[in-house]
Amino acid sequence: MVFLTPAGLHFILFLGSVRENRNAERVKKYLTNFIAKHNVSVEIFDPVEMAVYNYTKVVTPLHYYPKQEDAPQHLLDNNARIKKADGFIIVTPEYHSAVAPALSTLMDQFPGLSYAYRPAAIVSYSKGRFGGIRASTQLRTFLSELGMIHIPSVLAIAKVENTITPDGQTKDDTVLASTAAVVEELIWFATTVKEYSKVM
Amino acid sequence: MVFLTPAGLHFILFLGSVRENRNAERVKKYLTNFIAKHNVSVEIFDPVEMAVYNYTKVVTPLHYYPKQEDAPQHLLDNNARIKKADGFIIVTPEYHSAVAPALSTLMDQFPGLSYAYRPAAIVSYSKGRFGGIRASTQLRTFLSELGMIHIPSVLAIAKVENTITPDGQTKDDTVLASTAAVVEELIWFATTVKEYSKVM
Amino acid sequence: MVFLTPAGLHFILFLGSVRENRNAERVKKYLTNFIAKHNVSVEIFDPVEMAVYNYTKVVTPLHYYPKQEDAPQHLLDNNARIKKADGFIIVTPEYHSAVAPALSTLMDQFPGLSYAYRPAAIVSYSKGRFGGIRASTQLRTFLSELGMIHIPSVLAIAKVENTITPDGQTKDDTVLASTAAVVEELIWFATTVKEYSKVM
Amino acid sequence: MVFLTPAGLHFILFLGSVRENRNAERVKKYLTNFIAKHNVSVEIFDPVEMAVYNYTKVVTPLHYYPKQEDAPQHLLDNNARIKKADGFIIVTPEYHSAVAPALSTLMDQFPGLSYAYRPAAIVSYSKGRFGGIRASTQLRTFLSELGMIHIPSVLAIAKVENTITPDGQTKDDTVLASTAAVVEELIWFATTVKEYSKVM
Repeated sequence: MVFLTPAGLHFILFLGSVRENRNAERVKKYLTNFIAKHNVSVEIFDPVEMAVYNYTKVVTPLHYYPKQEDAPQHLLDNNARIKKADGFIIVTPEYHSAVAPALSTLMDQFPGLSYAYRPAAIVSYSKGRFGGIRASTQLRTFLSELGMIHIPSVLAIAKVENTITPDGQTKDDTVLASTAAVVEELIWFATTVKEYSKVM
Repeated sequence: MVFLTPAGLHFILFLGSVRENRNAERVKKYLTNFIAKHNVSVEIFDPVEMAVYNYTKVVTPLHYYPKQEDAPQHLLDNNARIKKADGFIIVTPEYHSAVAPALSTLMDQFPGLSYAYRPAAIVSYSKGRFGGIRASTQLRTFLSELGMIHIPSVLAIAKVENTITPDGQTKDDTVLASTAAVVEELIWFATTVKEYSKVM
Repeated sequence: MVFLTPAGLHFILFLGSVRENRNAERVKKYLTNFIAKHNVSVEIFDPVEMAVYNYTKVVTPLHYYPKQEDAPQHLLDNNARIKKADGFIIVTPEYHSAVAPALSTLMDQFPGLSYAYRPAAIVSYSKGRFGGIRASTQLRTFLSELGMIHIPSVLAIAKVENTITPDGQTKDDTVLASTAAVVEELIWFATTVKEYSKVM
Repeated sequence: MVFLTPAGLHFILFLGSVRENRNAERVKKYLTNFIAKHNVSVEIFDPVEMAVYNYTKVVTPLHYYPKQEDAPQHLLDNNARIKKADGFIIVTPEYHSAVAPALSTLMDQFPGLSYAYRPAAIVSYSKGRFGGIRASTQLRTFLSELGMIHIPSVLAIAKVENTITPDGQTKDDTVLASTAAVVEELIWFATTVKEYSKVM
């Protein structure tokens, strides 16, 4: 399979951890460095930084507001960003073999139609030897329900604290090869969907 | 299989929704009414009411405090409650085919050892026709990772707004039969574990 | 989303049951009738009819033969068919909440590279009220591992014996709407991948 | 948790591979050696050796015979064996992230009632680095549907050809520790269920 050089693709990268001293920092740096070598721009949706996650008790997803204009402005703005993205990179830690709740809380705020028909890549990490592959499996169903089309290759980073340095470097061959496969497939696929729409 | 009459079992029922106008109210009323007919006491762990869930951004599970005594008192108190329970009823809505994040956020605050070797029953509900059965499936792995032993029967309430009234009544034969199976198995199993420990 | 009229797409439909009096016959007739209305040709891979499934004890997948030319001719022929398909429709009954083993036995005979980068649609059915949606969820992971890209919409046929007649007719609105969504998405997506390759 | 010394427990160990040169041999030897150190007898249900698996095309599970006496004798005999077992060890390789079809084919032949309310332990293995943990996750749902109660600990053997020798030896600390946890929990749990029934 020959992968095309992309032209001006824009991705959103979702993070899934709100814990202190989270390993998400390592993974975020590693991935953004890696993608920077391609002709792709990336925007981060980080639950720690986003107003959407600063709820106390009650959360109402955008699509549950009878009138969209009654929704908080940050929900409307982020929804518009999601609709414009050419693809998604979904990063989750694994807690007790499951997707991190901060990730699903964040993604659940927006309607499936905003994500629909765009490709997604799945990245998981954990302190253990399975690298979050079970959370990754659960994400397939979740992302499909949100309307995304996820690529076959996945990146599962085992023993993340040993594998990725705090400044986002790795020498792990398995991780490097998986990342290359994931990024190339996502770019190929996002280009296919985007360019084919132009051809139509 | 003949089920024993239990003697003084105590269960914790976890709820999983923090949304406004949540259907969790219907399910909570239905289940507590149903169980009240048996000789069992039930305590509710409701994310809407619990301090543990009133975080803004940063969450630190109890087992990540280097010194337990530095943890907030509500974490320590609720952990002690979990350790004393004879069994658990885990109730989740299903969002995009997945477990509700409020449920996993709440349960993740406590170490697996606190839940270990006690039986759990799984209840799911949704507005759709599958009744949250996919979330239920994901819960099996999650609860096993927390050390619980979950019973085979499940209760999956489809079209919850039609099936359960706001005051917790139902005339749905499938729901009634599943609830009876779930409650009987949980009581049998919790009695087995509790009484056998005495016998030893 | 406007879906293009396809031009000469060719799909393979996999069946997953080898049981006597199987409901697969109903579902096969229903789906082939439905698709016949579109400009698409469909070939059936049916474990009951295929030599690949007539093993006694020992099965060796094609990719485990050190020399491909030593493999049985039917394996080589069917592998060539898979490589030429523009898309796949994967039909599974659900046994004990899992994918039917006849389906995975059949699909496991061929290497992932033969399926790779082509779209797939998932169809499940059962005698019960969940329509095989749990098997459907497991299929997502399995198909991804085989390299396919599965569309978001799924068709889950509950109470199949009441819903689909022996000659493949249905009046169930949910089934009809899901089938339309699944077929349209698969055609859109297969066209996208196929035509875009030409454009390149 | 103090685990009792068991008295005369009898387990069935299911294997899941029918492939030539299967790694199931290594795992079978390893597990039977390990368990031999405890006061437990183990019987093997091996699809390669069992008449139940020597079908050509058509398979009819025992519970689908309108009259049980019309079923083949081997189905009736094996069903009686399953009903008498005190616990189960379910061993599966992982093919494309899924449970091996030979395992589910074999287990599907018998009704859920024959397995019900007895504990099960899950063992998976693979040539890769995840040790079949995804198949293991799928097994939880499958075994629950069959009525079993599976213990929390699992054994997942990664890179099985390097980890277990052909005569069933290992020096891998992770594997040894997991096996000990799995066997102890299964014995504890099977004893609990068996002895408590006597106490009743």
